[in-house]
Amino acid sequence: MRTIEWQDGLVVTIDQTKLPSELVYLKMKKCHEVASAINDMKLRGAPLIGVAAAYGLALTAYYSKAERKEDLINEIEQSAEILRRTRPTAMNPFWAINRIARKAREASGDAKDVAKVIVDEAQRMADEDVETNRKIGEHGSKLIDDGDTVLTHCNTGSLATVDYGTALGVIRAAWEQGKTVSVIATETRPKLQGARLTAYELKRDGIPVTLITDSMVGSVMSRQMVDKVFVGADRIVRDAVINKIGTYTIAVLAHEHGIPFYVAAPTSTMDLSHTSNEAVIEERNPEEVTHFFSRRIAPEGVKAMNPAFDVTPMKYVSAIVTEKGVLSPEDLKQLHEV
Amino acid sequence: MRTIEWQDGLVVTIDQTKLPSELVYLKMKKCHEVASAINDMKLRGAPLIGVAAAYGLALTAYYSKAERKEDLINEIEQSAEILRRTRPTAMNPFWAINRIARKAREASGDAKDVAKVIVDEAQRMADEDVETNRKIGEHGSKLIDDGDTVLTHCNTGSLATVDYGTALGVIRAAWEQGKTVSVIATETRPKLQGARLTAYELKRDGIPVTLITDSMVGSVMSRQMVDKVFVGADRIVRDAVINKIGTYTIAVLAHEHGIPFYVAAPTSTMDLSHTSNEAVIEERNPEEVTHFFSRRIAPEGVKAMNPAFDVTPMKYVSAIVTEKGVLSPEDLKQLHEV
Repeated sequence: MRTIEWQDGLVVTIDQTKLPSELVYLKMKKCHEVASAINDMKLRGAPLIGVAAAYGLALTAYYSKAERKEDLINEIEQSAEILRRTRPTAMNPFWAINRIARKAREASGDAKDVAKVIVDEAQRMADEDVETNRKIGEHGSKLIDDGDTVLTHCNTGSLATVDYGTALGVIRAAWEQGKTVSVIATETRPKLQGARLTAYELKRDGIPVTLITDSMVGSVMSRQMVDKVFVGADRIVRDAVINKIGTYTIAVLAHEHGIPFYVAAPTSTMDLSHTSNEAVIEERNPEEVTHFFSRRIAPEGVKAMNPAFDVTPMKYVSAIVTEKGVLSPEDLKQLHEV
Repeated sequence: MRTIEWQDGLVVTIDQTKLPSELVYLKMKKCHEVASAINDMKLRGAPLIGVAAAYGLALTAYYSKAERKEDLINEIEQSAEILRRTRPTAMNPFWAINRIARKAREASGDAKDVAKVIVDEAQRMADEDVETNRKIGEHGSKLIDDGDTVLTHCNTGSLATVDYGTALGVIRAAWEQGKTVSVIATETRPKLQGARLTAYELKRDGIPVTLITDSMVGSVMSRQMVDKVFVGADRIVRDAVINKIGTYTIAVLAHEHGIPFYVAAPTSTMDLSHTSNEAVIEERNPEEVTHFFSRRIAPEGVKAMNPAFDVTPMKYVSAIVTEKGVLSPEDLKQLHEV
């Protein structure tokens, strides 16, 4: 199945905090349940939480008792506000909310008609996400040569999207074309998406993967074990790529070693009317750093930082792979000016 | 008490794998127990395992039933071989073993006399380590300005030495001089010496510390939160500093951000007759990466790398603080040539 599905008024997804040891499905009937799941990172990955937000609004619409369009729109706006407060950095939920809200406003008829439009639009966005990722894979796979070892960070696979993945989708596409590809996956502290999710997906698909700690990136690069880096993005602003904490560290190291650093993301991640100094970097609970699952690792009372994302200036980015093709940071600038 | 002590035929130390949740003392009577404790990282830190190796040989000498000097020397050589096989990268155990062996060979008298010489020499080395660290602290503290935030990696404090510490000793010395210093400590995966040990020592001493994951180094540097980096060393060769995995990553980032990168280590860590391509980098059990304590985090069967150290070329090193003063990488070259 897809990572997220709409089943007649039920949003079904995998609880990613339980992977890889348990495969637990979450069934949600209310928008605030979707918001909580996003908050707790049961659902994560910028494209996935974008579609999840759309489905959250679809749940509100589906179960609404409103009769007039304006009343439904008010309910949708309240649900949207709950969703907007979950995770401020990823662009995709904001994009998804705006798209649903616009569609709802433009729809004609009573609340029932508009609700149907909303549910259909959320469904369409889920379908589009898969198609978009396939196209990202197709474009990006041209950048991968037979025999390449690709380093990747966090999880950007089918678990981070509706299906297929962005950066991991590129690797998957190259693999499906018969290219020999190996992956070095960083474990991605504090939440270990690399160790838990990327390793799980690649192993399932038979793509060779070697796990490293985040601290080993410099070591593997200096030992010439990395040909290319592919990562995803949570928000692409005019001057920088904002992505999972640790991305910037990898980008600087890639730059120092002359290793191409590619970002793979749908255009729905783009926020080209803003720059990085306007971006909000989510600061999560420091217990994610001082604890490991429920086990305390640092002494009682020790302060910790926990920014969930960092900012990689375009200087370090070789290219951005989107569903529309491979763009240079220069193309991006022009895209904005147009 | 000191981190390691000789108590009439007993070597007493702290089991560092149990910190910070439990303070458990290890009492060892045999050299192979010392070797096992080093192997399992119950004892760790280059200066500490140097002195531990000397004490291991002291245990062999103390309990030896040999009557003739040659027989004792043979036993010492066998114990030395066990110790040499524990952790190949750190220089200090090799240095300590050579020093004890030379002292034993030069000693006159029967096995009893030589045994006494060995025990005394091991004691002297422990005392010297504390004095050496104090001097490193004194020299290094001149590099720290009032108000500095220092980023450090792994643990280089009293727990990594007999007492006081190397890089953490420098921070401690600056603090004792009344300078306001804050520390950002990396957690240091996979063994978490930063989260477990550095945070523990600094908190105990009242020095402000903020814990980060290794992946946050680039982020805190780009946000101008770091004034200087101080790390220790496991082996300093002519062209590079070999230290805990993750050090090289930090050095490249410091270089990119124009942040001074200092190494603090006793001259017993120096191996200037060799270069980095001759160095052996210990590869430890991959389960340290795929598991967290005893809990599996990566899926069954996933491959992992686990180099315990990495290599930082001198290009990235601003200076090396030793008990003899602050040396530039250039001084080091001359030191070798002399």
